[in-house]
Amino acid sequence: MKPRINMITLGVKDIARSRDFYEKGLGWKASSMSNENFVVISLNGIVLCLYQEELLAEDALQKKCPLGFRGVTVSQNVTSKAEVNQVLEHAKAIGAKIVKPAQEVFWGGYSGYFADPDDNLWEVAWNPYWPIKENGFVDLPE
Amino acid sequence: MKPRINMITLGVKDIARSRDFYEKGLGWKASSMSNENFVVISLNGIVLCLYQEELLAEDALQKKCPLGFRGVTVSQNVTSKAEVNQVLEHAKAIGAKIVKPAQEVFWGGYSGYFADPDDNLWEVAWNPYWPIKENGFVDLPE
Repeated sequence: MKPRINMITLGVKDIARSRDFYEKGLGWKASSMSNENFVVISLNGIVLCLYQEELLAEDALQKKCPLGFRGVTVSQNVTSKAEVNQVLEHAKAIGAKIVKPAQEVFWGGYSGYFADPDDNLWEVAWNPYWPIKENGFVDLPE
Repeated sequence: MKPRINMITLGVKDIARSRDFYEKGLGWKASSMSNENFVVISLNGIVLCLYQEELLAEDALQKKCPLGFRGVTVSQNVTSKAEVNQVLEHAKAIGAKIVKPAQEVFWGGYSGYFADPDDNLWEVAWNPYWPIKENGFVDLPE
């Protein structure tokens, strides 16, 4: 299996509410192939999919989605502490719950978390050891 | 907030077990910065992080991780139905639970799911409408 991710799918309760959150709130652009059951958004090569959670569970032959913390988080790295603050302030302004205010963290960085309307957690982090390249990616040591 | 994901973190119970699964099983290479608390693997620009789930919960100021389905899935797109079969057979051979055998799906593709040792679900999918580019990414219509 190749070392590759193409899509991450977040289960959501209300597609319209989530679409508003990501599109009007965060300012991300949904692809025209989105519909009332799912929304797909092209991020840096990776597809973010918001999918009605019962349908996601059904697709994966699973029972209900958990309430609250999902045991999975997604992160965006940014270039400075100020940008972490900025992103979290914006998230707050659009009604996102600030799950963890921006703060120094033990590994030497600065980060915080906000939640989308379904408690999918986004970490926003400045990591001095992971510079962000021109294309938006970070490089890990081999 | 820029439309970007840099890392996805999967909560896991036993780092050594998960590292074996992804490294020896799937054949993915962990970065040398990995340690006994977390493993980071560079995928196509995105970092996959396996993190001790209590520590992930603690980092995000959350309670325990859910048991079973997490309401979030990650997908890898491949170039043919045969490759879907191949990847799922490999997953099975390394001891992964095949959560959904490869099958035709209503949207016109062919896919299946396997679970990592903590029930983090990986979908392996062939999507005839999402050709895979040279760099491994898929393009969505605007």
